[in-house]
Amino acid sequence: MRRITFLLVAVAAMAGAVAFLAPGTGRAEPEASPVFVTSIPPGYRDWKLVSVAHEEGNLNDIRAILGNDIAIKAYREGTLPFPDGAIIGRIAWAYVPSEENNKVFGRAQSFVPGPPPEWYLQFMVKDSKKYAATGGWGYAQFDKDGKPAAEAKLTTCYPCHQPIKARDYVFTRYTP
Amino acid sequence: MRRITFLLVAVAAMAGAVAFLAPGTGRAEPEASPVFVTSIPPGYRDWKLVSVAHEEGNLNDIRAILGNDIAIKAYREGTLPFPDGAIIGRIAWAYVPSEENNKVFGRAQSFVPGPPPEWYLQFMVKDSKKYAATGGWGYAQFDKDGKPAAEAKLTTCYPCHQPIKARDYVFTRYTP
Repeated sequence: MRRITFLLVAVAAMAGAVAFLAPGTGRAEPEASPVFVTSIPPGYRDWKLVSVAHEEGNLNDIRAILGNDIAIKAYREGTLPFPDGAIIGRIAWAYVPSEENNKVFGRAQSFVPGPPPEWYLQFMVKDSKKYAATGGWGYAQFDKDGKPAAEAKLTTCYPCHQPIKARDYVFTRYTP
Repeated sequence: MRRITFLLVAVAAMAGAVAFLAPGTGRAEPEASPVFVTSIPPGYRDWKLVSVAHEEGNLNDIRAILGNDIAIKAYREGTLPFPDGAIIGRIAWAYVPSEENNKVFGRAQSFVPGPPPEWYLQFMVKDSKKYAATGGWGYAQFDKDGKPAAEAKLTTCYPCHQPIKARDYVFTRYTP
């Protein structure tokens, strides 16, 4: 995800600055621009499962992708684009061998979630008006303490998702 | 899971045969013994996530572990043993590289669920009386068409789970 062009960064940053000129002060708000999501969607850990994945390389994680009810319904019915209100969440954990499982199996074969990585949580929030500049999705990343990623980091999300515009910018397929 | 002793097989099979002597016929029922579960718990795909894992080797799968509400509550509160009514489900998929993800990332790093493997679904159903002979858990396995595993296959479940008696025979830890 890091090896993408940053063409949109300047545009997004400018749009953010213009949108958040605080009335009467003339100074830009320190808060994120409207294409980004800065709070963790409540109850996400109770959402239904979309799918799972393992990322090698720098990420080296194992992950679950969850969806709120609107997202799951759209996934199951094949609705594209996803309707407003859909939220897709990704929880990642370090990819580690399970010594206790391997002991039972008699060989090293089992890999399970370890500690949270640098960016523990990611979300895509669908609002076709609010996030029109980024394909109708607002993007968010949070560390294990719930601290959101800086805006510069989040501007890298949309360009990376653009190659999958045909599936409404969503990488993960629903796995029955 | 295949490299375990089959000491309990004969015992379990005998118990099953005795329990299912059909009244008046003197012949054993062809149905499974009471330590096994032969129908897929309804609605399991809507259950909440317990955790995820990857198994290498012969299994070569990526999997999600889900729990019904009773199981999830017990997991989150650290309740052991799990109360009656708890059901833990495991969905497995073939572990395959995602060419479409790798194309975007610019390298081979992404692994996602592929087709269902031979044993697509597994369940542990807690009923401390009904399944007293196998630690209070009934075991089940189903293929992608919903066909349950033969009893001989299911007798291998409990012996393999015995080393983790301290966690009420449940391998998977809840991952927040």
